Amino acid sequence: MSPITSTSPKNLRGADSQLVHQEEQRQDLGFGTKLSEAYSRLINKDGSFNIKRVNEAFWDRLNVYNRLIMMRWASFLSWVILAYLVANLVFAGIYMLAGADNLKSSNDQAFNGDFWKAFFFSAQTLTTVGYGHIAPNSFLTSSIAAFESMLGLLAFALATGLLYGRFSRPTAHIRFSAKAVFAPYLDVNGWMFRVINARANQLIDVEVEVSLSRLETRPDGTKYRRYNSLNLERHKVAFFPTNWTLVHPITTESPLHGCTPEDLANSDAEFLILLRATDDTFSQTVHTRYSYRYDEVLWGRKFRAMFDGSQHGMVTLDLNKLDETDEVPLN
Amino acid sequence: MSPITSTSPKNLRGADSQLVHQEEQRQDLGFGTKLSEAYSRLINKDGSFNIKRVNEAFWDRLNVYNRLIMMRWASFLSWVILAYLVANLVFAGIYMLAGADNLKSSNDQAFNGDFWKAFFFSAQTLTTVGYGHIAPNSFLTSSIAAFESMLGLLAFALATGLLYGRFSRPTAHIRFSAKAVFAPYLDVNGWMFRVINARANQLIDVEVEVSLSRLETRPDGTKYRRYNSLNLERHKVAFFPTNWTLVHPITTESPLHGCTPEDLANSDAEFLILLRATDDTFSQTVHTRYSYRYDEVLWGRKFRAMFDGSQHGMVTLDLNKLDETDEVPLN
Amino acid sequence: MSPITSTSPKNLRGADSQLVHQEEQRQDLGFGTKLSEAYSRLINKDGSFNIKRVNEAFWDRLNVYNRLIMMRWASFLSWVILAYLVANLVFAGIYMLAGADNLKSSNDQAFNGDFWKAFFFSAQTLTTVGYGHIAPNSFLTSSIAAFESMLGLLAFALATGLLYGRFSRPTAHIRFSAKAVFAPYLDVNGWMFRVINARANQLIDVEVEVSLSRLETRPDGTKYRRYNSLNLERHKVAFFPTNWTLVHPITTESPLHGCTPEDLANSDAEFLILLRATDDTFSQTVHTRYSYRYDEVLWGRKFRAMFDGSQHGMVTLDLNKLDETDEVPLN
Amino acid sequence: MSPITSTSPKNLRGADSQLVHQEEQRQDLGFGTKLSEAYSRLINKDGSFNIKRVNEAFWDRLNVYNRLIMMRWASFLSWVILAYLVANLVFAGIYMLAGADNLKSSNDQAFNGDFWKAFFFSAQTLTTVGYGHIAPNSFLTSSIAAFESMLGLLAFALATGLLYGRFSRPTAHIRFSAKAVFAPYLDVNGWMFRVINARANQLIDVEVEVSLSRLETRPDGTKYRRYNSLNLERHKVAFFPTNWTLVHPITTESPLHGCTPEDLANSDAEFLILLRATDDTFSQTVHTRYSYRYDEVLWGRKFRAMFDGSQHGMVTLDLNKLDETDEVPLN
Repeated sequence: MSPITSTSPKNLRGADSQLVHQEEQRQDLGFGTKLSEAYSRLINKDGSFNIKRVNEAFWDRLNVYNRLIMMRWASFLSWVILAYLVANLVFAGIYMLAGADNLKSSNDQAFNGDFWKAFFFSAQTLTTVGYGHIAPNSFLTSSIAAFESMLGLLAFALATGLLYGRFSRPTAHIRFSAKAVFAPYLDVNGWMFRVINARANQLIDVEVEVSLSRLETRPDGTKYRRYNSLNLERHKVAFFPTNWTLVHPITTESPLHGCTPEDLANSDAEFLILLRATDDTFSQTVHTRYSYRYDEVLWGRKFRAMFDGSQHGMVTLDLNKLDETDEVPLN
Repeated sequence: MSPITSTSPKNLRGADSQLVHQEEQRQDLGFGTKLSEAYSRLINKDGSFNIKRVNEAFWDRLNVYNRLIMMRWASFLSWVILAYLVANLVFAGIYMLAGADNLKSSNDQAFNGDFWKAFFFSAQTLTTVGYGHIAPNSFLTSSIAAFESMLGLLAFALATGLLYGRFSRPTAHIRFSAKAVFAPYLDVNGWMFRVINARANQLIDVEVEVSLSRLETRPDGTKYRRYNSLNLERHKVAFFPTNWTLVHPITTESPLHGCTPEDLANSDAEFLILLRATDDTFSQTVHTRYSYRYDEVLWGRKFRAMFDGSQHGMVTLDLNKLDETDEVPLN
Repeated sequence: MSPITSTSPKNLRGADSQLVHQEEQRQDLGFGTKLSEAYSRLINKDGSFNIKRVNEAFWDRLNVYNRLIMMRWASFLSWVILAYLVANLVFAGIYMLAGADNLKSSNDQAFNGDFWKAFFFSAQTLTTVGYGHIAPNSFLTSSIAAFESMLGLLAFALATGLLYGRFSRPTAHIRFSAKAVFAPYLDVNGWMFRVINARANQLIDVEVEVSLSRLETRPDGTKYRRYNSLNLERHKVAFFPTNWTLVHPITTESPLHGCTPEDLANSDAEFLILLRATDDTFSQTVHTRYSYRYDEVLWGRKFRAMFDGSQHGMVTLDLNKLDETDEVPLN
Repeated sequence: MSPITSTSPKNLRGADSQLVHQEEQRQDLGFGTKLSEAYSRLINKDGSFNIKRVNEAFWDRLNVYNRLIMMRWASFLSWVILAYLVANLVFAGIYMLAGADNLKSSNDQAFNGDFWKAFFFSAQTLTTVGYGHIAPNSFLTSSIAAFESMLGLLAFALATGLLYGRFSRPTAHIRFSAKAVFAPYLDVNGWMFRVINARANQLIDVEVEVSLSRLETRPDGTKYRRYNSLNLERHKVAFFPTNWTLVHPITTESPLHGCTPEDLANSDAEFLILLRATDDTFSQTVHTRYSYRYDEVLWGRKFRAMFDGSQHGMVTLDLNKLDETDEVPLN
């Protein structure tokens, strides 16, 4: 029983532990308490995590499929064209090795030399266009061409899958207001931010979680990162046709109760936001992350209405007003 | 620390607020209380929202993929054919610039002139059919053709994805009764509407939410839109093989308790319906929205049964009877 | 305000209704109480519903995509081949109309006459194989061929989507024991049936709902169908590697308490089963329906173990033993 | 009413059973209590179940699509190439039977004999490259070629689906620490293991269930397998950017309370782990299973931190440190 070390021959004593109970109340979103210094930020503006990973395995880091799916269209198309060129250059070389004479063409003068004849034959084989005015005329060359045309079909199958994957990938285009605000809310104050669906397609069952991450000091002087989930006036809506202002009311139970701008800055505060929704077109779940740091929060400003009132019985929502705020005294 | 404005140097005082608690009970589906006028309607008959968005970003408004997926088949096929024609016209022009002589054909007289020879060569290249009776006969023309055949493959890959996306998109074909009714229900009255699955495939785990949207007047005379979710006798069924009459019983707790036809009209009432189900074929979630305005509600009529009784031991459901009602005195 | 009929000018009086409360406890799975006769059965052995729909709209009844996805492979491939033949016959006819002479071939004698030359040219165009030994030699014929090759690509795209849809469709291959049994269970009796995953892939998070459907007689002598959900000893397992015997313990709360075989027969009893699971390969949800009628339930028999004991430290599950039972006296 | 056996003419008496209630508390994950011997293990290291199935139906055991999706890339590509070769050999044979003379080529000497001419013609037809320098020259040969090119398109469609299925299949690459540990936790001890996301893509809403499987002895001396779910300090995180140490605190309620290394070994203890998460790229749910047997648990060791502290304001996570532990005295 070698893997069981014998540092502790005694039995495992358990106990009813108050500390265990406390720890279970922790509202960590998954970053852990060990991030005990003031980093630049936890969540970047594009929703990625500000964490560096080392010693990742090669294929895990490369992650080819995900990269080809996530990269910009310009990059994707450049890679496709590059791969097409390289494949044809390589096969042109192979046909040259197999003997350029074995590619019979109706007019050898037309292609700027044998290499380019082989190159164009390769292109016509890879895409299966196969005009036939250049054709393989030996066993070896015919074999290479048979293999290349099969490769071409597989490559095209791959491209089909990638294009479909790129288009059908569930994405939301949620725009968050550039700043969050502290504004009066009913008879108290509230911490608020605003979101809109920037795209024309419908999002439904939209759900938001907000967590406040702050550095705190333990009695022994060591620092640790503490997380508090923030209650929202509404955290879920079935429809999301207009803008939505999310409000955390600062009642006595709020972790922000009695907080000053300096407190937020000193504790390296960051508001972490996770939004989940369902895209109506494909019934796909979409996720968006965002965060506001202490220096992206305005005190004593409220959001300006995004509705234009109603013209011709139709509500008009002006997406450009997302970030507009007005000064307002706090309660 | 400039972004933190100093309009409020004081601390954020929180309070136990009764108003905050009240607001949390709000049953808004996501339209917000600001829609304070009598609009034509909130949800259109096709399930879209009756809201106009301005200043949407170009690509977000265009939303190419979604449009190509959602448009009617006739439009989709017209776009495909148009794109094919335009691509061939453009490439025919390019081949003409590269010199029509460089497209060697076995019979130049056959195609009504060089331009159409180039056009047909382009079509044969784009679709990779490549008969070869027209073939590229120079370095430049061969290069263009190699590029065009690759483009053709990509375009075809795209079409494959779009066709698959169009077919595999989760859709339900739920038909709602044209009118909702107020009818007797047990020893009280109920507000009812009826739905059927118009398609032959099975829907399971069907869930319905109904909300009543009305304009109300605040003590200060301003108007706001109020939302009440309506309790249903059943809001979920595991199977949906027949018709389903959804009933909101008007007990004393109902927001419709004591309501008259005039009340509904004066408050611009609209019943908002959200239906979620799972399509059994692909286990996809489908969503349908619908709404009844006050003038689409019948008072004192009940739905006629859609069953034909049983013939040969088999239940017969007549889909044509969905909208049929009979007069009935209310309780 | 014409659509609001005036049969009831009075207000809608609501009341706290005991009947309404009772009705909300109804455990109908979605069939409704109106199915008040002894039909052959509600759920067929293949999981479909035994309900006939009339006046379904043409396209909804046809439901082309779903049919092509659900039909057997033999039928599917027959349809594909048939469509290919018909398309080529139609296009051969069109090429004949455009003039058979405009299809230039190297050897007109080879194809059994002009029609078959046109037919094979069509096949070579539709599949984009395009050998070129038959080639279009006029403007009109070239145009038709350009259109046909595009059609061919679209048809192929369609076939790709259909094949992928057929393969990737979430399906479970759950086998239910041929009979359910009443057997002793702990110190009471239980109603039991047994399921296995017939396929080698893993199912996880398997969840089962069972409902008992019976005809009952109202005090006024009319019949209606009543539904009771049956509590299960376990209704959910995270893993499903072996067989699973589902047990409804017949305690005093059970609707089967005090029930005799004759009671079940007289009330046209049917046990309705809905199973939901997640397929591990694609993380897809799968649903299976099944039912046992009163004459598919054995009294006083218990299931025989399906395990072979362990050989070489490995559990062996014999799928053939699914239906085996032994006689046992009931408690 | 023949299927209802008459072994029990009496009514089904029910009873309020304490045993039934107890049984409902059972925390079996789905393996059942019958696995009453010390097997090698229940869950293999790759997440599959250590259970042998006999008498599985042929197609269910074969499970072609799943195998082609799950097999390694090298195997998959070998199968594709093999199928391509075999198909061409078969069709070459068929063309030979139909008469090699009916395949007209511009240079019959080029292909090492008629069989290979037929083989290359088949390859050019199956891939639809169709150069045309070999072409069918009889009705029969043209028919076979028309059929083969259609088959080629279908095969290609299949390959497209398989390639897309392989790439888009939801997979997580979770790495579990090689050993679990018993280590001090707050003022008690805890059983702990550690996981990381080995891949660069994001996982969200990660949820873990842990169950302890042990052999126990009934009062009558027979053995049965008992399952206890283990409470975790946290069982769910919204974000999973770093490592996550899962802790089961050994309080008095824990099934591990008072447990010794010998107890675990004697009871053939195995810790069964089920992890569910959502892949952010495609919003797909992914599942991972793992297990630790008693001899994969270290007593009195704790995990070493995987963070490198912060350099340049960025947290650095060293994936290589996953398995590193330090000796520590237990509480």
